Amino acid sequence: MNEKHNNLEEKEIESNLIFDGRVLHLYCDKVSLPNGGTGVREYCKHNGGVCVLPLTDKGEVILVRQYRYAHRKVTLEIPAGKLEGKDNDTQEAALRELREETGATCKSLTFLGQMYPSPALLDEIIYIYMAEGLEFGEQELDEDEFLDCVKMPLSELVDMVCDGKIPDAKTQVAVLRAWKIMSERG
Amino acid sequence: MNEKHNNLEEKEIESNLIFDGRVLHLYCDKVSLPNGGTGVREYCKHNGGVCVLPLTDKGEVILVRQYRYAHRKVTLEIPAGKLEGKDNDTQEAALRELREETGATCKSLTFLGQMYPSPALLDEIIYIYMAEGLEFGEQELDEDEFLDCVKMPLSELVDMVCDGKIPDAKTQVAVLRAWKIMSERG
Repeated sequence: MNEKHNNLEEKEIESNLIFDGRVLHLYCDKVSLPNGGTGVREYCKHNGGVCVLPLTDKGEVILVRQYRYAHRKVTLEIPAGKLEGKDNDTQEAALRELREETGATCKSLTFLGQMYPSPALLDEIIYIYMAEGLEFGEQELDEDEFLDCVKMPLSELVDMVCDGKIPDAKTQVAVLRAWKIMSERG
Repeated sequence: MNEKHNNLEEKEIESNLIFDGRVLHLYCDKVSLPNGGTGVREYCKHNGGVCVLPLTDKGEVILVRQYRYAHRKVTLEIPAGKLEGKDNDTQEAALRELREETGATCKSLTFLGQMYPSPALLDEIIYIYMAEGLEFGEQELDEDEFLDCVKMPLSELVDMVCDGKIPDAKTQVAVLRAWKIMSERG
């Protein structure tokens, strides 16, 4: 195997905004390639999001069941939401989504890192958190948001991720990361 | 916390194809919501992809460095590629991407499951594989594909995922899954 370190950068020649939606902003840009040629890159801009794995004192995770229209399917995911224009703090956004979707507040919030869901197509970045020391109140959903909460042991969720029963990327990452952290705490 | 099981389905009223690109197909559909109201869903259709974590007999992973124009950044990812029209076998597609991007063939290929990178925005499904028993030949890149190969111990990669140095979602999932599998093999 060859380990080379070439210049890989693609430079914008012309940027074309094709669709400027409420959530997605699709571009079709003309770029110069590392070999001097030109190419076209189709991609979407998006405001990014946060997600939070809420872990109870008994080692259970709160998940949400919701309909994902793009997949025409109900999925099981950790609570999450889009970053809004006013959000300059992803931690506050995570606490908001936790409260809105599950009704919970938390005593501690741990940052588990960033994720690029689909770097070839999308500039979306998701900020991943784990919440502990939960206290439960009432859900406060957005007008066009419909979801159910489900509680499940973290160990069972790890098996579900490994058995292919949880296809959502951010939930797979957060569950595997939380499981590694809990294993190391002993 | 309330565990309810409502009807969550959103039904298509009108489907509008806004942009029919080479890679992305953007829709802006009118849907009926579970409460009887209507809403709009912006999302992209995409042909889906495969990725493969190549693990050497010495416990090292082959990664690719490539420029991701949507993020204006070079990222470190496991080899991956789009499914093509003719691909009705994701396993064959994984072997093709492995060979094209790293020059390697493998003796064993393990399916690690599906991933929905961004289910709110994108119908993309990525099929994740792990390749072992590697033998190396020459890279065969696509015309507009530019990437470098890098070799790194799996244990170091696990630390990099946990330290936030590998933001790509499919690489995070594959590295954590491979690490769990190798830990269980002992």
